[in-house]
Amino acid sequence: MQRFEELLEGKIDLLPESRVREAMRYSLMAGGKRIRPALLYTALKGYGIEEEKGDSFASAIEMIHTYSLIHDDLPAMDNDDLRRGRPTCHRQFDEATAILAGDGLLTYAFETALKADADDAVRVSGARILAEMAGSGGMVLGQDLDMGEVSGVTGWEDLKKVHRYKTGCLLSAPLMIACWIAGHSEDEEKWHQVGEKLGLAFQIQDDIMDVRLTPEEFGKSTSDSNNDKVTSVTLLGIEEAEALMNRLYGECIRETETFSGFDSAAMKELITGIQNRTK
Amino acid sequence: MQRFEELLEGKIDLLPESRVREAMRYSLMAGGKRIRPALLYTALKGYGIEEEKGDSFASAIEMIHTYSLIHDDLPAMDNDDLRRGRPTCHRQFDEATAILAGDGLLTYAFETALKADADDAVRVSGARILAEMAGSGGMVLGQDLDMGEVSGVTGWEDLKKVHRYKTGCLLSAPLMIACWIAGHSEDEEKWHQVGEKLGLAFQIQDDIMDVRLTPEEFGKSTSDSNNDKVTSVTLLGIEEAEALMNRLYGECIRETETFSGFDSAAMKELITGIQNRTK
Repeated sequence: MQRFEELLEGKIDLLPESRVREAMRYSLMAGGKRIRPALLYTALKGYGIEEEKGDSFASAIEMIHTYSLIHDDLPAMDNDDLRRGRPTCHRQFDEATAILAGDGLLTYAFETALKADADDAVRVSGARILAEMAGSGGMVLGQDLDMGEVSGVTGWEDLKKVHRYKTGCLLSAPLMIACWIAGHSEDEEKWHQVGEKLGLAFQIQDDIMDVRLTPEEFGKSTSDSNNDKVTSVTLLGIEEAEALMNRLYGECIRETETFSGFDSAAMKELITGIQNRTK
Repeated sequence: MQRFEELLEGKIDLLPESRVREAMRYSLMAGGKRIRPALLYTALKGYGIEEEKGDSFASAIEMIHTYSLIHDDLPAMDNDDLRRGRPTCHRQFDEATAILAGDGLLTYAFETALKADADDAVRVSGARILAEMAGSGGMVLGQDLDMGEVSGVTGWEDLKKVHRYKTGCLLSAPLMIACWIAGHSEDEEKWHQVGEKLGLAFQIQDDIMDVRLTPEEFGKSTSDSNNDKVTSVTLLGIEEAEALMNRLYGECIRETETFSGFDSAAMKELITGIQNRTK
């Protein structure tokens, strides 16, 4: 969506010129799938709210997602050289700049959310959801659990917990924030659950593509399989993993049909599109 | 202040148990000087506001300060082994955990600020000030400029800019937030200026102590002088640096006497105490 790309880069342009700003721009504008912003905009559409009301929060979530990728790619973490077919941030710049670019994006995400075109109650709740879903009770906890994977994660229940925090939380955030923008804050916890399920399905799909595609096709280093990590495919086998993934996507779609005052047609289409993605 | 130490550790206890939580605790509870919380509490006192009103924001600022130290100490940044006389976070745990602990503290700072016992307008402004002062238009920009120091910073004007962003911004934040809590938001920009001046004085004092004290006395590795970094002492000479430092501290004190509805006695005492610190 060209409008969103321009919106996002416009936010970066507001910052003072610096090397770290260019590293933030490099990673943020690398052409990701923008799934989290799409979830937010699509949920707003379902509630009958104009897209622009979600701009600041959609930008903030994409900044947080990007920061997590930059730090996750660092030599001390996954040590990846490629991301979306281009050198990772620390390979394109240097390690110190990549650490700071991640820190800068995380901080700027909150600044952007707090300046959203919304009343203060929505700003506070939206930013609070971002912090809860991204922090050490959410995504950061997931990263921590993931690093302990080789030694600590042995079964499917452990791995589900990793995915719930590492991937699910940041897919829940745009859905939870959208219901606040739309004045349906009573739906927050239900959207939280949908997001976690979606995250699990999404991660299983990643694991499946990781073994089926070459790095060139997939656009990033297949570090997980190279590192002999435990994945849904190694634990469940590829057929069972695929069946579970499809069941979970189906459940997500059916659950979005249960929200009152919500037209689920567009959300159904978005989730089906994610389910059918090829990379 | 024992009350603040317990308050701070209580915030960490609210997070789910994990390795990253213990790394956050390790660095946060390492017995820092707590200058930023003291600035916030003292500014509140000057406005006649009870201390407890500042608890969440004081905790948030100390979390941001601690995250910046953890990331600054990393091998890719300053590569320090000691901090406050103990192993740095990445030496005590490992590099990946230290990166995540910093990310976790930064995120939790915003969560803590957004849950402050205050009305939504104060929560939004307080958290917005944190983001502006800590981010890539503030402290992160200062870190970026500092890394370019050897090649880029040659004169005193360049170095002042580093200190303004790297140290000044996060000393300004508690003062700026305090005036919002006290209902004197018209003072925000004036406090911003005081904080920057204080940061410059503080940093010059650090440079002076860095050449006068042994690492054991100073409680951290004297990496700056080891790395042949440009400092206020190498640029101005120790006598001139000391004279400038004292002049700046004096200006800070006089400026706090100009705020209306503000009793500057406690702030004067606090700044004098900082000026007379021996480490």
